[in-house]
Amino acid sequence: MTDTRIHPVILCGGSGTRLWPASTPARPKPFLPLLGESSLFQQTLARTADPALFAPPLVVAGGAHVGLIEERWGAGEADARIAVEPAARNTAPAIALAAALLPAEAVMLVCPSDHHIADQVAFRAATIRAAGLAREGWLVAFGITPDRAETGYGYLKRGTPLGEGAWRIDQFVEKPDQARAEAFLADGQYDWNGGLFAFTAGAFMAELGRQRPEMAALVAEAVAAGQQKGALFHPAPAPFAAITGESVDYAVMEGAGHAAMVPAAMGWSDIGSWRALHEARGSDAAGNYVAGRADLADSRNVMVDSDGPRVSVVGLDNVIVVVRGGEVLVTSAEGAQAVGRLPGARGE
Amino acid sequence: MTDTRIHPVILCGGSGTRLWPASTPARPKPFLPLLGESSLFQQTLARTADPALFAPPLVVAGGAHVGLIEERWGAGEADARIAVEPAARNTAPAIALAAALLPAEAVMLVCPSDHHIADQVAFRAATIRAAGLAREGWLVAFGITPDRAETGYGYLKRGTPLGEGAWRIDQFVEKPDQARAEAFLADGQYDWNGGLFAFTAGAFMAELGRQRPEMAALVAEAVAAGQQKGALFHPAPAPFAAITGESVDYAVMEGAGHAAMVPAAMGWSDIGSWRALHEARGSDAAGNYVAGRADLADSRNVMVDSDGPRVSVVGLDNVIVVVRGGEVLVTSAEGAQAVGRLPGARGE
Repeated sequence: MTDTRIHPVILCGGSGTRLWPASTPARPKPFLPLLGESSLFQQTLARTADPALFAPPLVVAGGAHVGLIEERWGAGEADARIAVEPAARNTAPAIALAAALLPAEAVMLVCPSDHHIADQVAFRAATIRAAGLAREGWLVAFGITPDRAETGYGYLKRGTPLGEGAWRIDQFVEKPDQARAEAFLADGQYDWNGGLFAFTAGAFMAELGRQRPEMAALVAEAVAAGQQKGALFHPAPAPFAAITGESVDYAVMEGAGHAAMVPAAMGWSDIGSWRALHEARGSDAAGNYVAGRADLADSRNVMVDSDGPRVSVVGLDNVIVVVRGGEVLVTSAEGAQAVGRLPGARGE
Repeated sequence: MTDTRIHPVILCGGSGTRLWPASTPARPKPFLPLLGESSLFQQTLARTADPALFAPPLVVAGGAHVGLIEERWGAGEADARIAVEPAARNTAPAIALAAALLPAEAVMLVCPSDHHIADQVAFRAATIRAAGLAREGWLVAFGITPDRAETGYGYLKRGTPLGEGAWRIDQFVEKPDQARAEAFLADGQYDWNGGLFAFTAGAFMAELGRQRPEMAALVAEAVAAGQQKGALFHPAPAPFAAITGESVDYAVMEGAGHAAMVPAAMGWSDIGSWRALHEARGSDAAGNYVAGRADLADSRNVMVDSDGPRVSVVGLDNVIVVVRGGEVLVTSAEGAQAVGRLPGARGE
């Protein structure tokens, strides 16, 4: 009997400087308990833990994070594996590495490890729909139903319907300006590209070989000369490091002949900034959210997050205060997207 | 030859909760280096240090602050004295205590110890004018030339002129509402009551005896039974504690027969809030001022004051951030006047 389970491929990459000072190179965003007591990585594992639907996860991560990952394995991850990237080369090589380690017919569910999904039922429904299309040979992107004119994401334009709850992708649209983002929202045919994908390992490798033959060859070489050590697979460093890094969107999805999208209204957030985290965490009646010790007076739409020192706030609106490891960040909600450019976030 | 020098009487009272978390009961506002490297108290001493014009200072302070004062004596304070209040009873008893320790003909210059005066030449000119009137028997208040419609101060209304640069006081006006404050500013005949006064000890005691005979008697009793120990004078605790506390404005100045005012445009600030401190400290071209480690991005009219931790600020306007002793305060400029009501400022 064929294994019809879905193979979660969990990507632990990225520097996460936009959530500095909580996120640091030694302790990046996926491993922080930002929402509840478990980390976003642990929540990603939990979301794909049902053995009736999912095979054990395959995590793709840099060597610096293997310790953080192994600390967080639960009992359910006894058969989990980690593919250790010898160098950071963006998402296309990371996914190709996973695909090369799976059987060609395996349905991969590619999940970033640092996103938040509030509605697990909607996630599961979209996953099952996407997996069905993947088995038919489609390369499937999850389309996040937009709720605002966001300029920070790429968009997927819906094309021909593929039955209930699925469309061909007519076009991948790069991050738009404000006017275009507003037009997309009004149009209703544009969804956010949330970075979640489903395809079989074989379909992905075939498209990669067609569109990026050099990358496919280097990945194959790195895997062939790689070493399995317990749960860890180490590709050969030299060929992997020789790869030119590219995103999966650019290297594979945009040029794929059979690209589909499955819309998903599942309370998704990439927690891409402190403002996004405030939104995902919720608020009291005044719009405020506090983690740690804080006294708020005459303030609205304020988030305070402190690892110790008391934070006293007076007369603020739309401000975020974070105290972490002796660093103090105070940003407007609008300014939160620029946090990654601060000297502190750059390690200076 | 009569000693015509002016006797500085420096009042070290008040809890200073509005500058929390810098100001605390153990280290109140007069003793903090808020403007430059020396404290407001030291700057007050320096302002009245010229031996050609001033006698050695007489400081009136609570016992808890004697150590802080003695730490800050300079070489010029060899003959300085401290009258130690057995209990805090507001400004009228504090000034009466000083008056009882000075010869009746001594001209007293009453100075709060926690105000900032930027223009020393203007201060000196106003002091000399006020001292001249004091020698004629007037009780003189300094009228601070207003530069905004401030609702946080009392006002002095000018009456009949008393020659160049002096007026009878027509009326003491309590803190006005916004509309009245604006009318006062437009009128031009109203100055702020800055809490600086000049009078002879005898004239003050005569008015106190006439208007508040019980307070005058208790002060006289406390001084008669008091003890001099080196530079410290300790009034008898029981009679001093029995005094009903009142401000000098209310107990003496408002009802005085010969109340005069000398206007002084001398860059005065009572540093009554973090906002006032930001104004006194000045700003760069963007309106920002930083003390300690801070990185500011896309921010205007921001003051950061940290005793250690780096503060990173993004996208703020009119906000003050203070880090002191493990407490973090973030307030709008407008909210700064409410800082004293925070739990932290109340010692909770």
